[in-house]
Formats: sequence, structure tokens, C-alpha cells
Amino acid sequence: MSEFKALKEECYEANMQLPKLDLVVYTFGNVSAVDREKGVFAIKPSGVPYEVLKPEDIVIMDFDNNVLEGNMRPSSDTKTHAFLYKSWETIGGISHTHATYSVAWAQAQRDIPIMGTTHADHLTEDIPCSMPMSDELIQGDYEYNTGHQILDCFAEKNLDYKEVEMVLLGNHGPFTWGKTAAKAVYNSKVLEELAKMAYLSLQINPNAPRLKDALIKKHYERKHGPNSYYGQS
Amino acid sequence: MSEFKALKEECYEANMQLPKLDLVVYTFGNVSAVDREKGVFAIKPSGVPYEVLKPEDIVIMDFDNNVLEGNMRPSSDTKTHAFLYKSWETIGGISHTHATYSVAWAQAQRDIPIMGTTHADHLTEDIPCSMPMSDELIQGDYEYNTGHQILDCFAEKNLDYKEVEMVLLGNHGPFTWGKTAAKAVYNSKVLEELAKMAYLSLQINPNAPRLKDALIKKHYERKHGPNSYYGQS
Amino acid sequence: MSEFKALKEECYEANMQLPKLDLVVYTFGNVSAVDREKGVFAIKPSGVPYEVLKPEDIVIMDFDNNVLEGNMRPSSDTKTHAFLYKSWETIGGISHTHATYSVAWAQAQRDIPIMGTTHADHLTEDIPCSMPMSDELIQGDYEYNTGHQILDCFAEKNLDYKEVEMVLLGNHGPFTWGKTAAKAVYNSKVLEELAKMAYLSLQINPNAPRLKDALIKKHYERKHGPNSYYGQS
Amino acid sequence: MSEFKALKEECYEANMQLPKLDLVVYTFGNVSAVDREKGVFAIKPSGVPYEVLKPEDIVIMDFDNNVLEGNMRPSSDTKTHAFLYKSWETIGGISHTHATYSVAWAQAQRDIPIMGTTHADHLTEDIPCSMPMSDELIQGDYEYNTGHQILDCFAEKNLDYKEVEMVLLGNHGPFTWGKTAAKAVYNSKVLEELAKMAYLSLQINPNAPRLKDALIKKHYERKHGPNSYYGQS
Repeated sequence: MSEFKALKEECYEANMQLPKLDLVVYTFGNVSAVDREKGVFAIKPSGVPYEVLKPEDIVIMDFDNNVLEGNMRPSSDTKTHAFLYKSWETIGGISHTHATYSVAWAQAQRDIPIMGTTHADHLTEDIPCSMPMSDELIQGDYEYNTGHQILDCFAEKNLDYKEVEMVLLGNHGPFTWGKTAAKAVYNSKVLEELAKMAYLSLQINPNAPRLKDALIKKHYERKHGPNSYYGQS
Repeated sequence: MSEFKALKEECYEANMQLPKLDLVVYTFGNVSAVDREKGVFAIKPSGVPYEVLKPEDIVIMDFDNNVLEGNMRPSSDTKTHAFLYKSWETIGGISHTHATYSVAWAQAQRDIPIMGTTHADHLTEDIPCSMPMSDELIQGDYEYNTGHQILDCFAEKNLDYKEVEMVLLGNHGPFTWGKTAAKAVYNSKVLEELAKMAYLSLQINPNAPRLKDALIKKHYERKHGPNSYYGQS
Repeated sequence: MSEFKALKEECYEANMQLPKLDLVVYTFGNVSAVDREKGVFAIKPSGVPYEVLKPEDIVIMDFDNNVLEGNMRPSSDTKTHAFLYKSWETIGGISHTHATYSVAWAQAQRDIPIMGTTHADHLTEDIPCSMPMSDELIQGDYEYNTGHQILDCFAEKNLDYKEVEMVLLGNHGPFTWGKTAAKAVYNSKVLEELAKMAYLSLQINPNAPRLKDALIKKHYERKHGPNSYYGQS
Repeated sequence: MSEFKALKEECYEANMQLPKLDLVVYTFGNVSAVDREKGVFAIKPSGVPYEVLKPEDIVIMDFDNNVLEGNMRPSSDTKTHAFLYKSWETIGGISHTHATYSVAWAQAQRDIPIMGTTHADHLTEDIPCSMPMSDELIQGDYEYNTGHQILDCFAEKNLDYKEVEMVLLGNHGPFTWGKTAAKAVYNSKVLEELAKMAYLSLQINPNAPRLKDALIKKHYERKHGPNSYYGQS
């Protein structure tokens, strides 16, 4: 029996949430889960429809893009996942989708402004949208450079990946992450909801203001601060 | 056996309607039900997903924010519920969601104008949107002050909570109430429908007028007036 | 056994299509079916949720608003149905909903322009939106006058109820009809689709033209003309 | 047993995907599948609802519009299918729907601009929208001329049907094709997604730019180029 069976199962279950949550059609998404102790991650095979995906199809990779186990080719976005796992030591899962409203903001090349407490319950910043990379980088090691692009975006905007667990790649779509693969998928769904709410709000009132700082702080802290009182401890 | 079993069941059933009616994702909502004779109310525990929620998880509270029964922490919005039950003696249930179109209007900081008979079938006023509270109140007893904020909004706009059973908290989302928890949830769904209809109407015709007074009166009265003839008596 | 059993069943089945086709929430709609030989029609009882509606709950009415059979109060819109059956001798069923996009156009007080062949497959005219009636008529026999309002609208715009089987009541919502109750419901769904398509088209291109006359004629005729070749004859 | 049994099954299965993928209501669509060796194609019968459609209802046609097998009248759009099969020798299936967002762009008479990598994963060009044909052609052999209209549109815009497997007929709706009937339906769904994403992007930012050339090339090539690495080879 594979020593990666549990990791594959975790990755499989997280992937199967994407169609269930209406975040993907066909094969437009992929989720990975990492095992930090073993220094490996599990990822969806490329182009396999969710209806036929099985736990044993999941591919096991090291952080240098070598396949350790699996008969199928891993997701074409695998190098982006590897780069993020290598760069950000505390994340346990990554999710990538082409969810409709998230993609719409990415195609509009706009950060999603923080407009309400639903947003502040999850993060205190606008959801960043990175600009498309240079032609040279696109023509180079594209998926690896995509990882770089995300890090550069966070550096430029002075964001912390532990607090902002989501990004829009300009003209492409969302990447989200979290302590587990399940949390990464949760963030994909939250992002899609925030994207839709912000879109509608600005259609109703193009001059709608950002959420005031005191409310941003209050809602984030009651869920994530040292004295949080949301959820069961 | 708990003396609150029936109340917990009522509260549980009303909560389970929220995902069924597409009004929440994950844990973005909570419903409570009151027992006026006993002076207690039942409320959803904080942060528990609907898929795993059980009737026995429901928490029993008095109106001064003491837990009377239950092993879990109550909803983080519990003080708002308690305040409303204490202030408004005839309501039997309260529902809070982050439903998409309702939140969009709240984030736009706009009252939802009464534009049609669907609206007038339920209330004769625009659906009020309260402005965000002052920083001082946010930093104070936030959820308690949220209850205050709702009452202040109704006082300012001269609204009667028995006739207008819904409010938008600016930049947050909707609270609705009613004679029972089930009716409070019904009002959450009605509000979401009205929010979507008004949004679309104004996209089609930004100058669309409010519903004329005679139609407001007619539709409200035929459903709620002394000579109403809607429904089975 | 009731002599109206088959008519009640037909009416029941047509009503049950409304929630299935996403045209109503709760009790926001009603369908009736007529028996021309007997001079009666069957209609949904007022305010009864679809989940509990049974064929035997359906109410049998004559055209002068007398209940002939049934223990429940008929739909509050019954007089409008009776008026239309009396006025238009060839229709066999009527459907009324508060479907979202149809209501949005009604609240915008705008005719739905004919913009494509989906529309022309069903009718050759813009879908008419009647203006709200005078206060005097609203305060009078409202539902009876609503029937009048529809006829006046058709007279003014020179429309034929046999060719245009749908109308929007300004600030209220759609009424549709057809040779059977099932066809009336079909028209409710078609109207909702046309309402959504026209809405989106004008958002994309506010100057999008009406469908050209030759295409209107071609599509309508191939489905409804003397030499039609759509469907199985 | 019919020698066309397998072809009918393929055609039936592809047709049944349309309602499952939310691309049609009622009978607003049709899919065909070709057998190049036999010089025939299978197509949905006209006006038959998907709920009652059976594999044996599928009609077998030659390319000159003769029914070879089947008791029902073929789709009213059959001549368009025949024309495309005759003109484009490598396609194996054709799908036609009235899907909402695709129709909205067709009614807006606008090409769908390439705005993101979801689009570039499938084609490198804007999705073409043909202008409505002349009155003379409409009044002539309309469905045959519709095939011509598509070819003229591709010639004018210098497009290759092997690379651009979709078109919008102005004021009508989408036709898509592919190597198999299943692939044609896949393209119908992809088109609907792209139509919705582009619509929302332009609502958020009316000045959102087209996708830059390097990204168009990169995403198309990694999926369809000689060194593609998407999917399982």
C-alpha cells in the first residue's frame, strides 16, 4: 500500500468539493495538499474530469517537480503549486479555479475592494489582483514564474500570505491557500462570494465606500484575533 | 429530557431552511426562536456547519446573555438577538444571513425602494438600511450596540417593527424577524427576492418610479388588512 | 366522485410546474385551467404552499366568481382569471407568477423589445407592459379591473391575444395564457427566459437593435405559419 | 437492427447533455453526430422535449437533406447542419443552443472579446458574431443560407473552423462543433462560460483590455500546440 494513501485521499476529497460548490465546470481547476514532514504534495492529474477522478489518480510530487508516485501527468499548474509550497512554509493546501465572478474581476484587472463584514470576517485587505507578467517571463518557465508573480504581488502590496489567503492572477483567475487543502477550497468559495457581492454592490452604487477601518478590525478580530469569540475554540 | 426540546427543534428546523433556500454558504447565518413564557431563546451555536448541525447542539440563552443549556458557544451575534427580543415583545424568531443581493444593497448603503406589488404584499415601506455605527460603539459592546443601531434606525425612520420585519445593517447584511422563527426565515427569503428584483429593475430603468400609493395600500391590505382575502383564514 | 376530477388534476399538474421551473418561491403564483363545455375553471387555492398542495385542494369556479366545489378560498387573483376566460373564448389556461426577470421589467415599466429569434419563435411583438391603473380602479374591484387593464392594454397596442399570449402588469408581474394550462405555464417560462436575455443584451449593448422584420416573420412562420415545419405535426 | 444504432446513441447522449449542463430549456437546442464513412448524420427530431426523447427517435439524414431512417421530422435547423458537414470535412458533431449569455451577445451583435486565459485555453480569437443575413436570403432557403452565413463570416474574418469551433449567429444564438458530438456540446458549455465571464468583466471595468498576445499564445499552445502538456496524452 502507498505510504501516501491518506494524503491522496485528502487531496481527492478537496478536489471533489470544487464541482459540488459550483466553482468549476469540466476540468477548470485543481487542488493540492502537502505533507511537510515528507516534503511532498499531492495534486490532481491534468485534464481528468471530476466525474471519473479517483483517489488513486492523484499524483505525488516533490517540491522540485519530480513525480514520486502516480501513473498520470500532474496538473499543468503544478510548478506554481510547488513554488508556493517552497516559498510559504506554513500553508498546507492550494486551490485554483476558474470560478465565474473571481475570473471576472481578474479579467477586469481590478483588486476586489473590501466593502463589507463578510469580507472582513476573512481578511482585512482588498483582494489583490496581480498584473499580467512580462512577455519574457510568459515565454520562459511560465508556471514557475506564475508562482514568482504571486510573491512579487504580495511584496509590492506589502501583504502577508498568512493573513491574505487569496490572489487573483490578472486575466487568468484565482489561487487560494490555507492550512489544509479543505481550507484552501473554502477560501476559493469565500472569494467567489465576495467577488459577486462586491460586483453587485458597485452596480447598485458605483460610489459605495470601502468598509470603515473600525469595522474591518472588529470583524477580523472577533474571528481571528487573540480574543476571538467566533466558532468553537 | 430537556424542558427546551421543542424550542431547540423549532430553532434547528428554521436554521436548516437557510441553506435549503440558498440564503447561506458555510456558517454565514443564524436563526433563533424565543419562548416568551420561559423568558429564554434558542440559537445556533457559533461556526457550526449546517451539514453537521444537530437539534441538541442548539444553545438556550436568557435575555441577559447567560447560557442556560448547551455545550457549545452560541452564535457571535447572540447579543443582538437578545437585545431585539428584550426590546420588541411580540417577535418570536430572528434570522440573520449574508444572502448575496441583500448584502449587496447593505454594502451599497441604500434602502431598497418599494417598486412593485411583491414588495407591497409584505410591507408598505422601503426596506431600511442603517448607516454603520460610530467607531466608539464598534469598539464597545459591538453586538449589543448592533441591536441598538437597529432600534435607532427604526426610530429615526419612524418605522414599526410589527409592520416592517426586516432591516439591512449598512456594510454588513440583513436581519429579519417575525412571529415565529419560521416566519423570520421566510422574511429573509422574501427580502433576498425583493433585493434582486429591485436591483434588476434599476439596471433596466434607472428612473423607474416607486410603486404608487394606491397599489401599496391595496396589496398590503388584501393580505394584511382587516378585510384581507389572501390565504386561508 | 367529483365530475371535475380531471380538470382539477390538470390544474394541479400545471401549478406544480411553477416551482419545478424556478418561476415561484413560496406561494407567489397561481395557474388555472378551464372546461369550456361546463363553463367552469379550476384554480389554485389562495396562499397554499406548493409542497403541501394536493389535487383535491383545487377550487372549481364559474365565470361569475362563485365557488362550485372546494373547501378552500380560491386565489386572490381569481377575478382576473374569470374576466380573461369570459373575454377571450379560445384560451384554456392562465398562469400568473412573480418570476424575477419578468417582474424586473414590469417594475421598470418597460415593454420587452423583440431582440432575437428566441422571441420570434413565440411572438412577433414586443411583450407589452401595461401602465398601473388609476387610483379609482385600484380602490374599486381591483382584480376584476386588472382583467380590464389587460384588455385595454391589448386594445391600445392593437394586439391579438391569440398571437401574444403574455403581458406584464406594470409594477406587478406577468400573466400568460394558452390553449391549455400547461401551455400557459410554458409561456411563463418562455417569458422569463426572454426577459433575462433582453436584459443582458441591453447591458452588453444599450444600442442593440430590434430584430429585423424578415427574421421576425421567418421564425414565427416556420413555427406557427400555415407552412410551418417545426415540431411533429 | 438498424445499422445506425451506435450513431443514434452517440447523438442521443450528446443531446441529453444540453439540459444537464443548463444550456437549454424545453426544445431550444439540437445536436447532431456524423458518420463520415457512411456519409450520414444523426440529428434530434424537431420539437421533442428532452424528458421524452429516446435514442430510437433520432433521425438519420444524408448530406442532401433526405431522411434515411426515422419516423419523425428532423430538427428545423437540419439544413444548417448538413451544409456545415459538407463544407467542413473534419468535424464530427454540431451543437446548437439558445443558452442565455451566448444569446445575449448574439442579440447585442457583438463578438465576444478574448479577455482571459479561460478563453485562450480554447481559442486564440474573439468569438465571432455574424451579422443577420439579407432579407432576400432569409426569405429564401433560410436554414441552408444560415450555413452559408457562417462560412462567409469565417471567410471575412479569416478564421479557421479547426481552431475556432464556435460562432454566434447575430440575433439568433450559438452554433458550436468539434471532432465528436460530445466535443461540440463541450464547446457550447465553454462558450456560455466565456460569454458570462466577458459580460461580467466589462460590467466591472468597461475599459478592460484584451488578453495580451503572449498569454494567448502560451495558454493555447500548452493545451493544443505541438509541445502541449495539458491533459493525459
